[in-house]
Amino acid sequence: MNVDGKHYRTIWLKEDDANIVQIIDQRHLPHQFVIEDLITVNEVAAAIKEMHVRGAGLIGATAGFGMYLAALHAPQTSTEAFMAALAADGDKLIATRPTAVNLEWAVKRQTAAIAAVGGDIWVRIQTALEVAQTIADEDAEFCRRLGEHGRAIIEEISRGKGGEPVNVLTHCNAGWLAFVDYGSATAPVYAAHEHGIAVHVWVDETRPRNQGARLTAWELGQHGVPHTVIADNVGGHLMQHGLVDVVITGTDRTLYTGDVGNKIGTYLKALAAKDNDIPFYVALPSSTFDWENRDGVKEIPIEQRDATEVKYIQGLHGGEIVKVLLTPEESPAANYAFDVTPARLVTGLITERGICDASEEGVLSLYPEKQ
Amino acid sequence: MNVDGKHYRTIWLKEDDANIVQIIDQRHLPHQFVIEDLITVNEVAAAIKEMHVRGAGLIGATAGFGMYLAALHAPQTSTEAFMAALAADGDKLIATRPTAVNLEWAVKRQTAAIAAVGGDIWVRIQTALEVAQTIADEDAEFCRRLGEHGRAIIEEISRGKGGEPVNVLTHCNAGWLAFVDYGSATAPVYAAHEHGIAVHVWVDETRPRNQGARLTAWELGQHGVPHTVIADNVGGHLMQHGLVDVVITGTDRTLYTGDVGNKIGTYLKALAAKDNDIPFYVALPSSTFDWENRDGVKEIPIEQRDATEVKYIQGLHGGEIVKVLLTPEESPAANYAFDVTPARLVTGLITERGICDASEEGVLSLYPEKQ
Repeated sequence: MNVDGKHYRTIWLKEDDANIVQIIDQRHLPHQFVIEDLITVNEVAAAIKEMHVRGAGLIGATAGFGMYLAALHAPQTSTEAFMAALAADGDKLIATRPTAVNLEWAVKRQTAAIAAVGGDIWVRIQTALEVAQTIADEDAEFCRRLGEHGRAIIEEISRGKGGEPVNVLTHCNAGWLAFVDYGSATAPVYAAHEHGIAVHVWVDETRPRNQGARLTAWELGQHGVPHTVIADNVGGHLMQHGLVDVVITGTDRTLYTGDVGNKIGTYLKALAAKDNDIPFYVALPSSTFDWENRDGVKEIPIEQRDATEVKYIQGLHGGEIVKVLLTPEESPAANYAFDVTPARLVTGLITERGICDASEEGVLSLYPEKQ
Repeated sequence: MNVDGKHYRTIWLKEDDANIVQIIDQRHLPHQFVIEDLITVNEVAAAIKEMHVRGAGLIGATAGFGMYLAALHAPQTSTEAFMAALAADGDKLIATRPTAVNLEWAVKRQTAAIAAVGGDIWVRIQTALEVAQTIADEDAEFCRRLGEHGRAIIEEISRGKGGEPVNVLTHCNAGWLAFVDYGSATAPVYAAHEHGIAVHVWVDETRPRNQGARLTAWELGQHGVPHTVIADNVGGHLMQHGLVDVVITGTDRTLYTGDVGNKIGTYLKALAAKDNDIPFYVALPSSTFDWENRDGVKEIPIEQRDATEVKYIQGLHGGEIVKVLLTPEESPAANYAFDVTPARLVTGLITERGICDASEEGVLSLYPEKQ
């Protein structure tokens, strides 16, 4: 998508140096647009853990490129030493964020491909690069496709409103900044906008890290999509008063049974949507499905992050990005990063293959090969 | 309650000068403890509107003292001129915050008492002072009593848990800082704590103005009550995992039919409590009842405040309180300050007369004189 009118992805190989991966360091948005070079797998792990990059698809794509950098720097003394180093680096990457299923998926895909290819180590490195590029390209293409499927939902609501703007509420950033391009929750919005359908997005600020207020607002603004930032507390009130037509969120891990792991607070919005008969959709490329676990509340691991992310917040003051203390210095804080929305609250899943019920039957009807 | 070990109310007449009302300017908490002198009714109106003071009971008490200051400075040329000035000042005070029912209640109580008393203007001024003091004293006493009723709920849960700490979740600040003393939602907590019942409070930070993170955390900390600050998004997850035993909130206006107007986001917590079979109580002195309206979602006016309260946040940086920008400069924001929790989601109302169902029948059983 566009930044100041120029097209960007969120991750790419540096134009004149294939040993360097470049990302947008999202910690500085919306106030500064910073591009960061990643050279080692440790830098990649830090970029994921410290959230220079974040979001289901982008974490996967970054892990994919991370495994390429791992291959580039692994010892070439023997295939065994090379593969052992790769395995250790893969474990290091997987350990950075426990909830995102794309992370493990990308590492395993890389490891399997690199192990499967014959030939010398140079061929394996080339394979790692190709797989990294493929993961990124697929992510962008899957998001583009799910955007087209999701656009149909917005288009139908728009017809029902006689062309009045369709009010979409979203939580966190499941925008192009969370993927390689287009985004998941935002892809239907961008697609509708491109097709001239009037759409307006209520952007949950998404405490504690404010991915909505910082990232979703910024990327929608860069693309000219009308939007309004709201505190996370507001969505229920808007729904009670007919000011939300549809909720679309992303997900960090959705079980094939339909339970949705996503940014903390998603569950509350799903409850409010249900209480007000408003459709609640979750948009995801198939890389975000968890094909093993069945019970989201019991089985999806929920990351607890540092309490300082709750007690302090970052913002712009006098032209500089500073952190300010919000609470009494001595008050403890807890920082659960995700929650689980049970399938019963989800109207449907928007995937690259189409829209399905949030149920085992629904998901397997789109992905019969997983049966 | 105590600040650094010394007992304070939130509003009082200055010890050596009955022409001056003193308040804690809560905008500086938790970082600075500032006492402010109020001399004119315009200063009182500004203190309410700009939220130097806030919270159902304290707004009422401040309006009560505001009418005393109004009487003190009204023209004494004739009773008519005096009463006309009072009426105009009363309207000015009522206009400061549309949702808080205590505001109009206190102004009307003052106007009626001042009009009813015979004698010269000096007697009327004395009456205004007495009524202001009575409103404040009653507020403190009602909160103390409702705290005792609410303590029984916490005590019973404590017995069921074999004395393990009872986890109370609260939203916003319905603490002593929102009243004259004790608070509403916190009164049962303070009462339990005083009686040696182990209790722990999950404090919703309560964006956009963070009354939880700033005020509730501070006052609980000053009193030694164990607590943990959480983002507003977290409560549902905690409830899904058995980490909340009871929700107790305050209210800015509760209809006699049981619908509860309170800080934006309360409705979302009530939905989550319902979904997880967790009791959801609302604590209020009777001054917060609205005896006229019947349908909260339709009839309670919801204040919209300035968007800058969402886009900027205040915190401590390098020893100074500063405001930082959170969103893209050009992104619009909306700032609905309250929402309505329908009676069907409320387990019970904790009042100074006891606990009742959140229904017309329940409320009138405690307040038969309103039938």
